[in-house]
Amino acid sequence: MIRVGIVGASGLAGGELIRLVSQHPELELTFLGGNSSAGRRPAQLHPGLRLDLGLTVERVTAEAVAERCDVVFLATPAPASAELATLLADRVPCVIDLSGAFRIRTPQLHERWYPKAVRPDELADRFIYGVPELIGDQLAGAPLISVPGCYATAITLGLAPLTLGLGLNLRTVVVDGKSGSSGGGLQLRVPDLHPLRNGAIAPYAPTGHRHAAEVSDFLEHSKPGTVGSLTMSAYGVSHVRGLLASSYVFTDDEVDGRELQRAYLRFYKGHRFVRVRRHTETLIPVPDPQAVLGSNFCDLTVLYDDEGGRIVVLAALDNLVKGAAGQAVQAANIRFGLPEETGLTMQPVMPA
Amino acid sequence: MIRVGIVGASGLAGGELIRLVSQHPELELTFLGGNSSAGRRPAQLHPGLRLDLGLTVERVTAEAVAERCDVVFLATPAPASAELATLLADRVPCVIDLSGAFRIRTPQLHERWYPKAVRPDELADRFIYGVPELIGDQLAGAPLISVPGCYATAITLGLAPLTLGLGLNLRTVVVDGKSGSSGGGLQLRVPDLHPLRNGAIAPYAPTGHRHAAEVSDFLEHSKPGTVGSLTMSAYGVSHVRGLLASSYVFTDDEVDGRELQRAYLRFYKGHRFVRVRRHTETLIPVPDPQAVLGSNFCDLTVLYDDEGGRIVVLAALDNLVKGAAGQAVQAANIRFGLPEETGLTMQPVMPA
Amino acid sequence: MIRVGIVGASGLAGGELIRLVSQHPELELTFLGGNSSAGRRPAQLHPGLRLDLGLTVERVTAEAVAERCDVVFLATPAPASAELATLLADRVPCVIDLSGAFRIRTPQLHERWYPKAVRPDELADRFIYGVPELIGDQLAGAPLISVPGCYATAITLGLAPLTLGLGLNLRTVVVDGKSGSSGGGLQLRVPDLHPLRNGAIAPYAPTGHRHAAEVSDFLEHSKPGTVGSLTMSAYGVSHVRGLLASSYVFTDDEVDGRELQRAYLRFYKGHRFVRVRRHTETLIPVPDPQAVLGSNFCDLTVLYDDEGGRIVVLAALDNLVKGAAGQAVQAANIRFGLPEETGLTMQPVMPA
Amino acid sequence: MIRVGIVGASGLAGGELIRLVSQHPELELTFLGGNSSAGRRPAQLHPGLRLDLGLTVERVTAEAVAERCDVVFLATPAPASAELATLLADRVPCVIDLSGAFRIRTPQLHERWYPKAVRPDELADRFIYGVPELIGDQLAGAPLISVPGCYATAITLGLAPLTLGLGLNLRTVVVDGKSGSSGGGLQLRVPDLHPLRNGAIAPYAPTGHRHAAEVSDFLEHSKPGTVGSLTMSAYGVSHVRGLLASSYVFTDDEVDGRELQRAYLRFYKGHRFVRVRRHTETLIPVPDPQAVLGSNFCDLTVLYDDEGGRIVVLAALDNLVKGAAGQAVQAANIRFGLPEETGLTMQPVMPA
Repeated sequence: MIRVGIVGASGLAGGELIRLVSQHPELELTFLGGNSSAGRRPAQLHPGLRLDLGLTVERVTAEAVAERCDVVFLATPAPASAELATLLADRVPCVIDLSGAFRIRTPQLHERWYPKAVRPDELADRFIYGVPELIGDQLAGAPLISVPGCYATAITLGLAPLTLGLGLNLRTVVVDGKSGSSGGGLQLRVPDLHPLRNGAIAPYAPTGHRHAAEVSDFLEHSKPGTVGSLTMSAYGVSHVRGLLASSYVFTDDEVDGRELQRAYLRFYKGHRFVRVRRHTETLIPVPDPQAVLGSNFCDLTVLYDDEGGRIVVLAALDNLVKGAAGQAVQAANIRFGLPEETGLTMQPVMPA
Repeated sequence: MIRVGIVGASGLAGGELIRLVSQHPELELTFLGGNSSAGRRPAQLHPGLRLDLGLTVERVTAEAVAERCDVVFLATPAPASAELATLLADRVPCVIDLSGAFRIRTPQLHERWYPKAVRPDELADRFIYGVPELIGDQLAGAPLISVPGCYATAITLGLAPLTLGLGLNLRTVVVDGKSGSSGGGLQLRVPDLHPLRNGAIAPYAPTGHRHAAEVSDFLEHSKPGTVGSLTMSAYGVSHVRGLLASSYVFTDDEVDGRELQRAYLRFYKGHRFVRVRRHTETLIPVPDPQAVLGSNFCDLTVLYDDEGGRIVVLAALDNLVKGAAGQAVQAANIRFGLPEETGLTMQPVMPA
Repeated sequence: MIRVGIVGASGLAGGELIRLVSQHPELELTFLGGNSSAGRRPAQLHPGLRLDLGLTVERVTAEAVAERCDVVFLATPAPASAELATLLADRVPCVIDLSGAFRIRTPQLHERWYPKAVRPDELADRFIYGVPELIGDQLAGAPLISVPGCYATAITLGLAPLTLGLGLNLRTVVVDGKSGSSGGGLQLRVPDLHPLRNGAIAPYAPTGHRHAAEVSDFLEHSKPGTVGSLTMSAYGVSHVRGLLASSYVFTDDEVDGRELQRAYLRFYKGHRFVRVRRHTETLIPVPDPQAVLGSNFCDLTVLYDDEGGRIVVLAALDNLVKGAAGQAVQAANIRFGLPEETGLTMQPVMPA
Repeated sequence: MIRVGIVGASGLAGGELIRLVSQHPELELTFLGGNSSAGRRPAQLHPGLRLDLGLTVERVTAEAVAERCDVVFLATPAPASAELATLLADRVPCVIDLSGAFRIRTPQLHERWYPKAVRPDELADRFIYGVPELIGDQLAGAPLISVPGCYATAITLGLAPLTLGLGLNLRTVVVDGKSGSSGGGLQLRVPDLHPLRNGAIAPYAPTGHRHAAEVSDFLEHSKPGTVGSLTMSAYGVSHVRGLLASSYVFTDDEVDGRELQRAYLRFYKGHRFVRVRRHTETLIPVPDPQAVLGSNFCDLTVLYDDEGGRIVVLAALDNLVKGAAGQAVQAANIRFGLPEETGLTMQPVMPA
């Protein structure tokens, strides 16, 4: 069994990690870290969890983690992750960070979007940006892994077949993201109270969402020069879990609209967590995040809009699973030589 | 009192018209028309309505409507509206159609998007496309009025200050629309059942929404040549009433981002139903359709995105009020020489 | 015009009072009081409200209220209401309190359920408990009015035709209440965050809800000895506005199940805000709070359950309108000699 | 591997069975039966399901089922189940019916509540009513199993510790049930359309819910004479999955309120799917169905209400899992000698 620590046990991503790890046949939960929640048991913090999970939350020390964990997941805010990673790197075989602290590779860009997450450049360089489907075998044995943002995962998986697969140059990409309230965590903020959040279409980031920078940075590093302008606006809509990222893509390159679907299927052949789906293939229009709820799937649909000469890419995922804890466990599986789907084969819970 | 008939009394727009007319100090409900609902009382069809509204639904005859109505609202599907308008025009002082039958002026465009709503060209030419805020005094005394679509109202009110106010040429406009389930009416369709619609982000029209054609047609007629490509994608999200239309605008003209807000305020000065609001001016980010629920307001926010050199225009309205019945009553008010806000001064019901 | 002050302007009941007063033809808003919200304009606190409401929130002084108000509504927590009422009684023609500070007449019962709302007994005795439909003309000219709780209004309106109308002795009454999240206000509490409150059936008061004591106290004072045991459990369910109170009634008296509906209609004849409805009379089963949303209606349905020998009484209302601000305005109307429905004729907004 | 057939593959319970069976280590899906859905693949019917499940839906023949299945689950309406069970009994090692066709043992009671589900008495007698926690080892090797109703499961698990454990006589039990929209399946009915169902508190069965008869019948057979009057009212509330059943219990026997919690813990010791929880033991009040979503748990809380001398029992479960498909798989596990939790160890997905 691989011994697992989770720091940030009281948050939503932390709770989801506990859920997944406790269902995983090869992972064993050996450490739970937190500050305000120290001394609490998992089911006190996360009402759904099995009541007999043995551990209680402890304050983090490098010694405890080093001694008891083969891998530690940091489900902490970016500034805390930057500190913890500095502390734990090289003391634990693998550190997997779920925050934004190590996602943006370009230093100036990182400083602009995460000014409070101060990190050693040298350490940042060693982190692998882990979208498993796009980076081949880099995760095998990796000591430091950065889990992409929820939106960034959806957008990147949606655009990669165009840039990396078809080699298109994307002149202008307009991203419109819609997500449920779990994306904002459980902080006490007035607009997140149920009476004000339910029934809302909340334009919480009409400009300046930092996942746009993350996507641009990754795509630019993957294949320089293929994305021109990429802008993003993000909205909170009236459900809890799951997001849909719509990318409206304009390119000057020749595109055969009828071939796009095939190109996407080809690009993701063998990757079981990415499901390329026709828009009308089932009871409801897809992709729709309700069809991936609780699972590690990312559903993708690509359409060509003759009218406007644009490509429409839709990507849906569960922000707490493929957009956070599930992708982290998927990365850990690859890191430790397990089949990537180990412990992640749960089907979506739908309707919910 | 102005005597009012409503045809299509059993639908959601019909019910909303009954609500508004029965609250209106100068309108008197004298005729309710319908087919499947003939013989029913309003509160049987619409559980919220006051129980003592006197009428029952009748089958439509030109004679009955002509005799008993000064104005008739058609809350019917486009094909039925095309027929009814042909029947009733010139027999009733005013016909106000809420369907798409007479919205698109250009015949070929109409035929493409509404092939089943066959209409005499001559009749179509006589209809006024009624966004009251944008067409000055054309509604006064008008015998035939076409009420814009819900999304079209929001998008057009959002873009007009740029084209008609600032005279910008909009090279590319990408519209992303998010709406509640009431936009789809009460037809029995599997994807509209609560278990499948709740929690959804349903990409029901990723391309080819006909309101895009309606907006382009209106803007082109208002000021030819100012809009290049305008594309739209529409999503159903998990609430019932209200929509948000996001327009991402790219222009080659010079734009002073700091002046946009002022230009919008200037453009809508004196129009009480359009509220130009700063994004952060209240408890929750605005515009958000929950802040206009039940009212005739359209809330607008304009932002300049330095990052991408684009203008972001957000427009929120209640699709059944400013997007349908309320705007119809507003048009009727102007048509009959009443202050436009008569009977429409109800404040939003929030939170709801 | 009657000059109106509202204290507690930032809360949900305060916002609803502003909505209703600003739509009212005979009331004029002249004072807004608050502490943490002092200096703010209404639309900053309540995103839906019309932007041009003139006042800003001020700290309360007896002088300001006395000088500028004919009536003051206290939309404050019970302890604050107890203090403010003591301060303002006899200085303002009418004080209408929406809290629980003066609802329970029996002193020991009050002290048990509202230990922090310390009030002079003499002052408490002068307050009229204002369910307008049940207390005849006591409100006319009353200087001090206590607005019943939202659940208490529903339950009392539901039971009164049995005790006061039919003269039944109710041996055992089991009340089960279901309400939306707006019942809890906008306090920052973890269980009220959208991710934890949406989709919930939250048994927040499985025993010991203080509205049960309020109802018992009122019914006992109205007609001593008619209610034996009355217990209540309350649940938060997954919507925002509106509640349903189910009363399961067991009596040893003879009951003719077929006559109950008629008895209820008779009891509420002439009271336009109480709608006695058959369970199946419309599209959806009623009463359902969605059918009264935004309105001052209380919908009632009574059924006789042959199986169990019990009477089932269902009562639905909008907790912020008939359950708070609307009932307060209704009381003010009667107090000042206006028709009770003045400014309250808005129809429900449904679907929403 | 145990070979599994599922008839009624297109319904919600059918979809949930496919989900659970396809995740189960010892079960293998070998037959999918249906009428209107014949020829469709699972993911066409259930948008969340893995795309590569091999089977397509076929029309049912006794031969096909007998040949290819060790166990067949009937997720069909009661009349169809009555016919299918007659057809398949003795041809397949095990028939597990999820409908109401074989739940009520007493023939007259069955005929009253399920008049269309005509069944041979002899066949009915052979069915085991399968709440695994309450019937010991009767399921081992059983050829015919009837899965209790969703509400019936919750209520029965909630009351059994009082009657079977403590031996109390329950004079009067008032049950109030609240459930999400998935309880009603996917039939096309106007009140189930999202605009009318969302935000509702729908009193769909204020009297006469047939699960009340099912519970009474089972408890009476388990221990005659312990339940006097048991009545039930059921409400649809505004979410999709999960129900809460509240039982308000009046007894003339002596009850020590402080001992109830312990008695419940003792009664369910060793039964991992029943979680006896204190009301305030976690972030949100429990039991709440959101805390069991997607899992096979039934959460129970028992309280003594000094005020009214009553016992309050709250039971929450996922109506599609512990209330249907999960309990069916649990029964199959026991039937075939597997540990009862095999394939059912998934944790709740929360928040969702």
